[in-house]
Amino acid sequence: MNHVRKNLLFNSPTKLQSGKILDSFDIAYETYGNLNSAKDNAILICHGLTSDAHVAGEGDVTGSRKGWWEAAVGPDKPFDTNKYFVICSNVLGGCGGSTGPSSIDVVGNAPYGLKFPVVTISDMVNAQARLADRLGIDTFHTVVGGCFGGFQVLDWMIGYPARIRNAIVISATPRTTTHNLGLWEVIRQAIMRDPDFNGGDYYGRKLPASGMGLAQMFGIMIWMDRKVMHDRFGLKLINDREPSYTLEPEFQFQAFVHNIGKNAVGRFDPNSLIYLTKAMDYFDLTRGGTSLSETFKNVACRTLLIGYRKDWRYPPEEMAEISEALSANRKPNELRTLDSHFGHGAFMYDSEGALEIIREFMLSAE
Amino acid sequence: MNHVRKNLLFNSPTKLQSGKILDSFDIAYETYGNLNSAKDNAILICHGLTSDAHVAGEGDVTGSRKGWWEAAVGPDKPFDTNKYFVICSNVLGGCGGSTGPSSIDVVGNAPYGLKFPVVTISDMVNAQARLADRLGIDTFHTVVGGCFGGFQVLDWMIGYPARIRNAIVISATPRTTTHNLGLWEVIRQAIMRDPDFNGGDYYGRKLPASGMGLAQMFGIMIWMDRKVMHDRFGLKLINDREPSYTLEPEFQFQAFVHNIGKNAVGRFDPNSLIYLTKAMDYFDLTRGGTSLSETFKNVACRTLLIGYRKDWRYPPEEMAEISEALSANRKPNELRTLDSHFGHGAFMYDSEGALEIIREFMLSAE
Repeated sequence: MNHVRKNLLFNSPTKLQSGKILDSFDIAYETYGNLNSAKDNAILICHGLTSDAHVAGEGDVTGSRKGWWEAAVGPDKPFDTNKYFVICSNVLGGCGGSTGPSSIDVVGNAPYGLKFPVVTISDMVNAQARLADRLGIDTFHTVVGGCFGGFQVLDWMIGYPARIRNAIVISATPRTTTHNLGLWEVIRQAIMRDPDFNGGDYYGRKLPASGMGLAQMFGIMIWMDRKVMHDRFGLKLINDREPSYTLEPEFQFQAFVHNIGKNAVGRFDPNSLIYLTKAMDYFDLTRGGTSLSETFKNVACRTLLIGYRKDWRYPPEEMAEISEALSANRKPNELRTLDSHFGHGAFMYDSEGALEIIREFMLSAE
Repeated sequence: MNHVRKNLLFNSPTKLQSGKILDSFDIAYETYGNLNSAKDNAILICHGLTSDAHVAGEGDVTGSRKGWWEAAVGPDKPFDTNKYFVICSNVLGGCGGSTGPSSIDVVGNAPYGLKFPVVTISDMVNAQARLADRLGIDTFHTVVGGCFGGFQVLDWMIGYPARIRNAIVISATPRTTTHNLGLWEVIRQAIMRDPDFNGGDYYGRKLPASGMGLAQMFGIMIWMDRKVMHDRFGLKLINDREPSYTLEPEFQFQAFVHNIGKNAVGRFDPNSLIYLTKAMDYFDLTRGGTSLSETFKNVACRTLLIGYRKDWRYPPEEMAEISEALSANRKPNELRTLDSHFGHGAFMYDSEGALEIIREFMLSAE
């Protein structure tokens, strides 16, 4: 498949949702397949919190790393690159090539760090729209994403109703939840309380490895399914030995959790994690008491909504709210609720069910 | 009610489950009501993870702090101090007056810190049995506790079957779970990664306030019910103002989580939290493949088991396992499963249902 990786510079000042101005920014993106002459076969895939533009295919900048949604993108796959031109761009604020806190601020000739402005989901979507402009894509055939990516799809539906014909929203809710507000704050605090964090100015110095590892160890306790933990590790002691009654980790699962913490370091910029989770905090389609059906009144696309029964962080009941509000506006939509013990994240790790539904939806959308 | 607070020194060497020897230890305890002449009206209450001997009544060492289970203990209350002599002792390894890592190690004339030996639930129960010996109590009328306290009750049932006539186990499971193994490890890491932790040697210096706060902030995300969070805080901004789009906490729930973190500091010894969670890690009544019904074969008491449907950390299905194993041995037992959105911890924070059942059980046990 025709797989291209590029960067584009947007060099005119951009007003962010906060009111702050970003003088210029880069967007890194990958494309798969070919844009047709009518330029109406483009699909935009919005990535999840710690993913990036490398959705499929070998050969990203790091070498042979696999894409994060290989099963979805390629010839004869649900997003069929024989027919469609698939784009995935790294979000504004990320660390996968687009401008974010680790990028050089031309003003100080040093990385932004915490001087980077707070960005929102809408700011990210606006940057994607600028990318589409530059590529000559007026209207996307489909915009798709899960969780953090799903928030972006919802923002597209509302912010650019004329530029999206089909939307696929997976494991996302119409607003953040109280629990997630707390979770992200604790994740950020774990990073920021590490003395090596140094107020976000750690580039070229020692990374805040301890705090970043702790954030990830904490994260795994929230997003790994308890049954998966139990089935895989149980209460097995390390090396199956007798307890040593020391303060060291004694159990295989504890060693795994430590490993997760170690592996987190160097793979994702800690400042980007702070900014992207902040963006999720602000996501609320009903802020100020607007009803969801009011919010959706100008939506013009067909919408497929996919949720998972065991996703307690982005529960299917809240996806049902989206479906109801769309239906109240007579907007065509389909809500599918699946079973997977992976719960949240199932669309990536246990994707078969979701991909079959997406394939049908895409065929019916041709 | 007759309320007494005392300390007793046990000055003969004690072999711990780890094989290590503890030369001497103190046990701090409180008593309520009067021991009768037959010495057969004593109730032992085993406290939860971060509680202590002060189960009820004003006038603990700190002054006017309320007891942690006021509704349960007192004249005409379910543990009726007109009839019973109620004892609650601080666990070995704790920081409420019993010997633990913050106690002075006579060898070095300094606090033990991480030189304190790892202790298990059985070690704690053995210390309680020594206390009973000293008080001349051969057999407890009832031993009761929830969660960490419930683990102690289970250990009493198995370790001292002849010394306990009635057992009340609340929100406890026959063994720790994979999820809890991970949770406690992350809690410990949050504390131990704080540079002020200083290898556990922070007494008389700066407390590891940042790590202890982080541990508690993480904890609240696991043990506070999501519906309670949502109903109480929703997505309300601090001071109901507009978002400020800064990296500071913006939402009332985030301020609450920070507050929880701040309040954690100075209230509980960080080293004790490390040791007591370690003890929970080792709790497993089926280690080495012993069946639970084999484990319970010598149990000689009546048992009341109380679980909560929404307790996902110590789920009622696992309490049911205890009931089944007791029944397989024809041991009288009663399993009651209650509803409370508090889930775990409901026996303290939403105690009405549990206390009514306990009252009935105590009346039938007279």
